[in-house]
Amino acid sequence: MGKKAVCLISGGMDSAVASAIAKKEGYEIHALTFNYGQRNRKEIESAKKIAEWLGGKHKIIDVNLRQIGGSALTDEIEVPEEAHGIPLTYVPARNTIFLSFALAYAEVIDADSIFIGVNSVDYSGYPDCRPEYIEAFQKMANLALKRSVEGRPIKIKTPLLYFSKAEIVKKGYEMHVPFEKTWSCYRERERACGKCPSCKLRIEAFKEAGVRDPIEYE
Amino acid sequence: MGKKAVCLISGGMDSAVASAIAKKEGYEIHALTFNYGQRNRKEIESAKKIAEWLGGKHKIIDVNLRQIGGSALTDEIEVPEEAHGIPLTYVPARNTIFLSFALAYAEVIDADSIFIGVNSVDYSGYPDCRPEYIEAFQKMANLALKRSVEGRPIKIKTPLLYFSKAEIVKKGYEMHVPFEKTWSCYRERERACGKCPSCKLRIEAFKEAGVRDPIEYE
Repeated sequence: MGKKAVCLISGGMDSAVASAIAKKEGYEIHALTFNYGQRNRKEIESAKKIAEWLGGKHKIIDVNLRQIGGSALTDEIEVPEEAHGIPLTYVPARNTIFLSFALAYAEVIDADSIFIGVNSVDYSGYPDCRPEYIEAFQKMANLALKRSVEGRPIKIKTPLLYFSKAEIVKKGYEMHVPFEKTWSCYRERERACGKCPSCKLRIEAFKEAGVRDPIEYE
Repeated sequence: MGKKAVCLISGGMDSAVASAIAKKEGYEIHALTFNYGQRNRKEIESAKKIAEWLGGKHKIIDVNLRQIGGSALTDEIEVPEEAHGIPLTYVPARNTIFLSFALAYAEVIDADSIFIGVNSVDYSGYPDCRPEYIEAFQKMANLALKRSVEGRPIKIKTPLLYFSKAEIVKKGYEMHVPFEKTWSCYRERERACGKCPSCKLRIEAFKEAGVRDPIEYE
């Protein structure tokens, strides 16, 4: 039996590319997506399409973070076009919550790795995308689980941690990642707005990578 | 305005005593209970009664860990009477998931502490009750949040970490913790079974503390 990886799939580009890397490395893919009460439902539809492309299993977990609140992504707060410092789209402890569930799931299905598409270069100011955060999460995970106590820790893999957004696009392009199935826009519309901080980052990345972005913008 | 604490309340003795300590230290109590798909519904009823006794707010968060599985507490696995090593009642990454939600909630309500009733002396073999785990979680938390980046980390407080079960009983007794409202039994019955590992620990603790256990056993 092949080695298994839990791949966190958000519906965006980064997690699609990170998971494609896991697949290329020979892992049996167990995609995990969170239905966390995000206002943007397109993300989940995109996640399904990407998981299907990856092959393997896909689990969608309901974890309603609206019960907690505190973010423009879950609450009725308008997503601003300009971001300064830590943006309003920050969701308190989101990666910590998602990675915790991924740890539990990995332990249950006996996977030895978790792939997450965080990147710290062109990151949006989220504290839980930084290398020092991932390193600290790994150390905590090494003490948290039955598996770890038994000497079989679960590795948090972040292949895109030091990639620029343009490098992520190039890497995905090489691996034929279906970027047309990904969704980056913070807004939920027929087509991406092209104006929110997430669209801007994406457009800039494709431009710099010299790759055509297959999605349409308003 | 007083300082706020998020107190994780399970319905058991330890979290009741830990929260009573938070109250005694002058915190405004924001109790947090997880409806995680535990087969034992009595725990949540007990948690409500304890939160009411504490005063302050009580939030019950739905986080269905049955979606993940892997434990006798959520799945249809019989809870064994004898426990060796890490027991079947171990829930993968449970404290990590609960503490992650507590972090998010603390950040949203602007609480500077989280109280959790873990203890490592008479603990049941759960890896996520050990001091080294809590220490690692704290370090991770210090990097995960907007608050931490802003220099206002959230402190994970574990006042019972080095208490024996008997000392927990004594401490609770001194503070008039209503032990009759707590529920420790792994089974869901009218009265506690008195035979499961959790009942055994409790009975032993009251005996050693020289305090009468106000609940009835079968």
